[in-house]
Amino acid sequence: MDTPTFVQRPRPLPDGFLAALQAQFGERCSLAQSVREHHGRDESPYPPMPPEAVVFARTIEDVAWVARYCHDHRVPLIPYGAGSSLEGHLLAVQGGISLDLSGMDQILDVHAEDFTATVQAGVTRKQLNEALRDTGLFFPIDPGADASLGGMSATRASGTNAVRYGTMRENVMSLKVVTADGRIIETANRARKSSAGYDLTRLFVGSEGTLGIIVEVTVRLYPQPEAVSAAICNFPDLDSAVRSVIEVIQLGVPVARVEFMDAAAVRATNQYSHLSLRETPLLLFEFHGSPASVREQATLVQEVTHGNGGMDFEWAEQPEDRNRLWTARHNAYFAGLQLRPGCRASTTDVCVPISRLAECVGQTAAELDQASFPYTIVGHVGDGNFHVLMLLDPDSPAEWAESEALNHRLVECAIAMQGTCTGEHGVGLHKQAFMRTEHGQDALDVMAALKAALDPHDILNPGKVLPRPPAP
Amino acid sequence: MDTPTFVQRPRPLPDGFLAALQAQFGERCSLAQSVREHHGRDESPYPPMPPEAVVFARTIEDVAWVARYCHDHRVPLIPYGAGSSLEGHLLAVQGGISLDLSGMDQILDVHAEDFTATVQAGVTRKQLNEALRDTGLFFPIDPGADASLGGMSATRASGTNAVRYGTMRENVMSLKVVTADGRIIETANRARKSSAGYDLTRLFVGSEGTLGIIVEVTVRLYPQPEAVSAAICNFPDLDSAVRSVIEVIQLGVPVARVEFMDAAAVRATNQYSHLSLRETPLLLFEFHGSPASVREQATLVQEVTHGNGGMDFEWAEQPEDRNRLWTARHNAYFAGLQLRPGCRASTTDVCVPISRLAECVGQTAAELDQASFPYTIVGHVGDGNFHVLMLLDPDSPAEWAESEALNHRLVECAIAMQGTCTGEHGVGLHKQAFMRTEHGQDALDVMAALKAALDPHDILNPGKVLPRPPAP
Repeated sequence: MDTPTFVQRPRPLPDGFLAALQAQFGERCSLAQSVREHHGRDESPYPPMPPEAVVFARTIEDVAWVARYCHDHRVPLIPYGAGSSLEGHLLAVQGGISLDLSGMDQILDVHAEDFTATVQAGVTRKQLNEALRDTGLFFPIDPGADASLGGMSATRASGTNAVRYGTMRENVMSLKVVTADGRIIETANRARKSSAGYDLTRLFVGSEGTLGIIVEVTVRLYPQPEAVSAAICNFPDLDSAVRSVIEVIQLGVPVARVEFMDAAAVRATNQYSHLSLRETPLLLFEFHGSPASVREQATLVQEVTHGNGGMDFEWAEQPEDRNRLWTARHNAYFAGLQLRPGCRASTTDVCVPISRLAECVGQTAAELDQASFPYTIVGHVGDGNFHVLMLLDPDSPAEWAESEALNHRLVECAIAMQGTCTGEHGVGLHKQAFMRTEHGQDALDVMAALKAALDPHDILNPGKVLPRPPAP
Repeated sequence: MDTPTFVQRPRPLPDGFLAALQAQFGERCSLAQSVREHHGRDESPYPPMPPEAVVFARTIEDVAWVARYCHDHRVPLIPYGAGSSLEGHLLAVQGGISLDLSGMDQILDVHAEDFTATVQAGVTRKQLNEALRDTGLFFPIDPGADASLGGMSATRASGTNAVRYGTMRENVMSLKVVTADGRIIETANRARKSSAGYDLTRLFVGSEGTLGIIVEVTVRLYPQPEAVSAAICNFPDLDSAVRSVIEVIQLGVPVARVEFMDAAAVRATNQYSHLSLRETPLLLFEFHGSPASVREQATLVQEVTHGNGGMDFEWAEQPEDRNRLWTARHNAYFAGLQLRPGCRASTTDVCVPISRLAECVGQTAAELDQASFPYTIVGHVGDGNFHVLMLLDPDSPAEWAESEALNHRLVECAIAMQGTCTGEHGVGLHKQAFMRTEHGQDALDVMAALKAALDPHDILNPGKVLPRPPAP
């Protein structure tokens, strides 16, 4: 498997295309280099590829107008939310327009009695939870960044709560979507279940802006748990921590969160977030439920961790202690970056069946110990998902090649274990090389047929998700 | 909204088509009238429309061969599982071949440590649970009939446990599917989550045999709960029962099951299943969890029901008592049929946001009290889903027209409440008339584009799910 390189090859714009766009949107259409460069990158290791213009949408009608205009003129159109993608999703590999939806940030409806909220695509997860504060409800999906709900839907994101509450796949109830040619559809209603036709909601969740532009999102909410407790458990080594997680999951304990950090990740987090965690591999647990249920869960989990050589639980009793801990965990990515000033990071994202997790993490750590660059490992291990943050010298093609080779071996190992190349970050550019191995050519052809049916001129985020077909 | 009538209009078969099919499959290809009639009907109120031949598949290669053959000759192909559909899914409206998958009944893999099982499409839910008996795990999705897992996937089925465990949407992890032209794809791997491309799994779940033929299903399993308790609570009227459910759900109590039966359904069940339940509207509850958690849930729910005029809980303590109760509930459909010997039944299946449930059920019951035929109401009310079983004289077009008009008004009411025309039975023939109202023409056009992309010759269960386009 070769590491593909991605080169920007803008499609030529029709004469007068940008002038008409500016006439339509005035100041909300920017050609400024700084704005374009900002919209031509994300948190991936790739150098930026700026679009030719950025349009700041305020309404669904704005989005529909831009879609129709780009569709009519065969111009690429890349939806942009918070810019926090990790795999090159936002790079304008074929030029075109970046459509910034961050200004569509209204919370439209909270149906507390039905546990649903409907928001515009630019609303971020923190903004939504802020708005829910007095309802007794919360929205659990929490990727590291304060991503937009539109972007989280488009990448099928998850985070630390997925082991209990699921991912965006399970928690998006309905979407409003603008199609490639500017039609506006709703993918479902607010009923908890329905058998009325094809599941358009799940078709657009995870489509990374390539099948339609998500403009509104209706999500499921959950009651704030009556009792919450969180604890840290240190382990003598990585394997004993991972084995504890496997046992906890196999016992069916409904933990709300179980996060792994290796010693390097803990060290980075201590420095970045001014904490004093013991610098060994550790697990962060959180338990949700009634007071009795939380006690029961904690007791069971403590038995399991002790049996695997885990040290005593350190409890984070107060809400502010828990918040500090989880904020630190969410900042593990940025903390890691500080371990090697000036580095760029490449992140792995495999997810395997839980029974294979120890083997997969163990093999990976053994290989990483031979690597010429520093790394950290963190993971949503209750789902079988973990990330290696590889801290690379941006001026060293050798380190980049080494990291790519390592990621390739890790992904092939995960796929051989019936796992996936990406648990939650999406494909973007970086994971395309694995799509054929993971899905097989026939399944990829089915995906390509769906893409051609919904975006016949290939204007929606072109060059992403699906690899180019193999040479004949 | 007119009640469409469905008339069988077989496509002409090419010369020698059936002879070649018989040459390929020998005795496993039947042209016998009794076999064809059996495969040209389901549990819907429609008169049967037999296919021109029935092929009994044993292997994926059989299925792929038939698909290619039908694809090459533009002959309709209808996958057939247990024959328990309720909405006309299996009727050969355009003739063609019924492909019976019930002989593909092998349980291929149980990964108890990952909580997954992979089965052939013809395995039924009871067969799977029988095989899981010694693993400590179970598969919760339980439509009334002992349906096949392939059919349950194809109709996005659910049942009494969905309020806690979700529907087939949430519980199918992966499918093996034969495409219209005979390719074999796997839609996903066994990782609990993945962001690697379009969600093919959810695309085929609920597609009712119109996008591909499901030949293997990988489902999620759950630990058998440590403690289980079930209770019956009678109510003075329908409204107090439904209001109790709404409060229980809004309190976030993780009930495993909460089922409603009206007095007529209870009476029918007493007769059919030899029980002596008090014949008022009632709720059947089941609680799963640790002993402490089950006690907590039961206490909370008892407070709610008492507050709404519910009578004392009657507990079903022993496993055999619970089994008798749930078997009786699952047989409510057949019990209902006995209320009017010789009748045919038409079943409604709306699902609304829980906040609107009392209003929706109340309006419906008021209308039904004016109807000229008997009826029962049962419901998976924790999901906002309920069924009216309308017991019709098969020789009375007037009763059929009356029942259709009533169903139309109910569906329009549910859709106006942001609900759906079908919570779990699927569209088949019977719900097509509502698809435009529920989804809008633009979303239906997107569904039609998906259908055309995956089945360009419209051979897979043609005439189902999507209504014909409106006259121009």
